[in-house]
Amino acid sequence: MKVKVLQNILDANDQIANRNRQVLDKAGVLAINIMSSPGAGKTSLILQTIARLKDKVRIAVVEGDIASTIDADRIGKEEISVVQINTGGACHLDANMVSNALDSLSLEDIDLLLIENVGNLVCPAEFKTGAHKQMMLLSIPEGDDKPYKYPLMFTESEVIILNKIDLLPLLDFDINAFRQAVTGLNPRVKIFPVSCKTGEGIEEWISWLESELRGR
Amino acid sequence: MKVKVLQNILDANDQIANRNRQVLDKAGVLAINIMSSPGAGKTSLILQTIARLKDKVRIAVVEGDIASTIDADRIGKEEISVVQINTGGACHLDANMVSNALDSLSLEDIDLLLIENVGNLVCPAEFKTGAHKQMMLLSIPEGDDKPYKYPLMFTESEVIILNKIDLLPLLDFDINAFRQAVTGLNPRVKIFPVSCKTGEGIEEWISWLESELRGR
Repeated sequence: MKVKVLQNILDANDQIANRNRQVLDKAGVLAINIMSSPGAGKTSLILQTIARLKDKVRIAVVEGDIASTIDADRIGKEEISVVQINTGGACHLDANMVSNALDSLSLEDIDLLLIENVGNLVCPAEFKTGAHKQMMLLSIPEGDDKPYKYPLMFTESEVIILNKIDLLPLLDFDINAFRQAVTGLNPRVKIFPVSCKTGEGIEEWISWLESELRGR
Repeated sequence: MKVKVLQNILDANDQIANRNRQVLDKAGVLAINIMSSPGAGKTSLILQTIARLKDKVRIAVVEGDIASTIDADRIGKEEISVVQINTGGACHLDANMVSNALDSLSLEDIDLLLIENVGNLVCPAEFKTGAHKQMMLLSIPEGDDKPYKYPLMFTESEVIILNKIDLLPLLDFDINAFRQAVTGLNPRVKIFPVSCKTGEGIEEWISWLESELRGR
């Protein structure tokens, strides 16, 4: 009985996610679902991305948080459209929440929509939002063993941003072991080692993003 | 309808958690539910605790992970009882999983049971396990704004271990702002700043734990 209810919820979510995708495609918007643990650097990556692309690309951001508008306030300073979703306790964004956010944006005036999910390495991977790309950040302090412990997130993500590489000299994180673990789960994943603090590696991420935007 | 089903699940969980508590009390075991984001240092804290107390206190560990036995293998080297729970996708431990773990331990031979929950700053706070104490770790790289974003975890925890303080000189983390945010949600919380890497601050945590063990 319990499983049946969950099945129904997921089916309904998938249907709404499909509708979101159609709405985005019609407006010519590339949407990216950005997931990670709390504090891995999602907002910092979004700010780096805005700084490098805002003169060329029309960007909007959907901010998902259980509570607070801290991240939306940070991004709002960039004078781009930001919609805050407060999930009120829920541990992930679902397609219906994103649908409501899409309704409040002028999609015709947007090229790139960055959706910052709730900080959680588990549940967001289970719920489609309608975004075209699933990506995640892992930060160096979290450790190189995370693919073994949270396999679904690493399997679902097309792109992994390995953030806080400025801390590599101080911490025991084996990048080769990490790559091996990830590609074992997900052979075609792209990994971008970056530091949102120093800017190292950000150009490679931006190049990938620009080529995805051109490909649409 | 959806809410009603969730209500029933939580009620059932509470009932099993109460039974777990009775079983623990009867055997004279102090159980602590340890929660945090992925990679905040739960296993490292458990290893530090074992190293300082294993000659005085009979310790066992329940390891909760979605997949893998990496942490249980690390702790198993200490020659204490370890039970691995693989949740098979679930984002938290529930009371029934812990009940099964209790069944497989000789509780009469244990003084202290450390339950390492799944790495997740959201869902574990919603599900009682039967443990006497709820505690969480936050690590310095996660940032000082986390109480605003994940309020339930900070409200439910009696004890907060603020780990990786060896990284404080390198990162923007305002301990006073953090304390203020936490005590606004939870005035009676105890905060122990520690570094599981250097051992700094661990003595204060151990003293607190010993006084809790004496109080039983």
